Amino acid sequence: MPLLVVGTLALDSIETPDQSREAMLGGSAVYFSYAASYFTPVHLVGVVGEDWPSEHTEVLRTRGIDTDGLQVVPNTKTFRWKARYTPGLVQRETLDVQLNVYGSHRPVLSDALRRCPFLFLANGSPTVQLGVLEQMTGPRLVVAEAIEMWIRDARDELQQLLQRVDGFVLSASEARQLTGEDNLVRAGMMIREMGPTFVVIKKAEHGAMFFSKHETYVLPAYPTPDVVDPTGAGDSFAGGMMGYLAEQGNFEPNTLKEAMAYGILVASFTVEDFSLDRLRRIDRDDIMLRMERYKRMLSF
Amino acid sequence: MPLLVVGTLALDSIETPDQSREAMLGGSAVYFSYAASYFTPVHLVGVVGEDWPSEHTEVLRTRGIDTDGLQVVPNTKTFRWKARYTPGLVQRETLDVQLNVYGSHRPVLSDALRRCPFLFLANGSPTVQLGVLEQMTGPRLVVAEAIEMWIRDARDELQQLLQRVDGFVLSASEARQLTGEDNLVRAGMMIREMGPTFVVIKKAEHGAMFFSKHETYVLPAYPTPDVVDPTGAGDSFAGGMMGYLAEQGNFEPNTLKEAMAYGILVASFTVEDFSLDRLRRIDRDDIMLRMERYKRMLSF
Repeated sequence: MPLLVVGTLALDSIETPDQSREAMLGGSAVYFSYAASYFTPVHLVGVVGEDWPSEHTEVLRTRGIDTDGLQVVPNTKTFRWKARYTPGLVQRETLDVQLNVYGSHRPVLSDALRRCPFLFLANGSPTVQLGVLEQMTGPRLVVAEAIEMWIRDARDELQQLLQRVDGFVLSASEARQLTGEDNLVRAGMMIREMGPTFVVIKKAEHGAMFFSKHETYVLPAYPTPDVVDPTGAGDSFAGGMMGYLAEQGNFEPNTLKEAMAYGILVASFTVEDFSLDRLRRIDRDDIMLRMERYKRMLSF
Repeated sequence: MPLLVVGTLALDSIETPDQSREAMLGGSAVYFSYAASYFTPVHLVGVVGEDWPSEHTEVLRTRGIDTDGLQVVPNTKTFRWKARYTPGLVQRETLDVQLNVYGSHRPVLSDALRRCPFLFLANGSPTVQLGVLEQMTGPRLVVAEAIEMWIRDARDELQQLLQRVDGFVLSASEARQLTGEDNLVRAGMMIREMGPTFVVIKKAEHGAMFFSKHETYVLPAYPTPDVVDPTGAGDSFAGGMMGYLAEQGNFEPNTLKEAMAYGILVASFTVEDFSLDRLRRIDRDDIMLRMERYKRMLSF
């Protein structure tokens, strides 16, 4: 089933201890849609400036991602983000953020997109996320994510959003920030009580936790020795998860757990190179092979 | 099959954000042997001073742990350790260490103990660990652990030890310290190449990783909302793991993975109260019940 994602397209500049790269293809909706495209048709909604290289759009189209909802605004610049990772590639420091054209973006969906059964509200202000949600016509599954800034600055709007989504995805530090609770098991349960049917806490290189009324579980990350750049891992996780759910067309408990695993595996590829470079070299078979290994790893 | 552990017995003083406790029953060999006692007969070798309450020894004996190798040295004091946990119970700061009688302990094994088929060399200097190993008569499985101080101060002796053990257990930060490699998958592989047949990296609340020539895998921690004091989790993990291996009497790949899981589960109980307080309230059935849930959690 079709999956709609609304989020950022960005030009990312990344420094790792070994290398640095300038103005690469990035952004939450980019990583998300590319990851999801292995599983289901994806429609992307976002905005870029006139500095956006058309090759970047081509990269997405090559995987069948519908970019008709990508708005290119003349006389503006694309969202830019610059960050530096410390040794170990776990901690990162944001060096620069330029919202540019993204800062005033209020997405308007076409009639066709409003009828998409699966919706992912990638990072954005809860107000913008709610604005998108209100345009939808009877979606089957709506999942949103939060980022630190909005947990801090838009708490009321975020609480409204939490009441209106089926699923909510956030990082471990964001879960602690939102709840004031350090134990992630408790934090996840608390967030679920704020509204969503299920909550996913992303633990980066340690995997992801899932919370529903009846289940609490954690799945580990796939152990890869080849981590080059962790940027986009969380967005790829969400894309793989939502892509698989949309493909399956249901969200039964076991489908959700499989979806978590697919998210983890797609993310494990993302981190093995900069930008989408690793994902561009794999196909569904590579993901399936890693899934076989992952299942074997967790069986005893 | 019988399992011998040589390590510390301690009087631990712990401050958590909520509570503080003085001079509790603690130490690596204490947590290890109690955890292992759910699976196999355990022989404990260690030393304490005359301040050691005999009730502490009774606690161990009640679970059938053989304490004949526990030496009480008159006119000395027991090893004492004092630490404070920061909110979240992940980071801790050591406030005070008094080695006392443990500082000059050179364990001498009885003839019966020298023939123990399974041996765990808990924290101690590699020189002391090697000294114990040299007294053994044809053990079937020898596993050792390291701590930060000896990785820093006794690198050469540690390299000798690594050549002589079947398994080696250490924390994520110790693995990084020993190898200079931040990626834990790489670090684990590097340590295995230093000699051991298998290496286990403990990741605390994120589970544990396993490395052998043919396998690399990670198992997550059991998600408990009730973390009171993480002290002894790593020792309990090792005790559960070694106890199960000794009970099974083999170390086939699948037995090793099951053993890792049992270690993780026993540790998940340990952290739910101070000292051995939580373990003292459970029996094998409680561990089995949690194992069922854990296996279900990892199945999809």
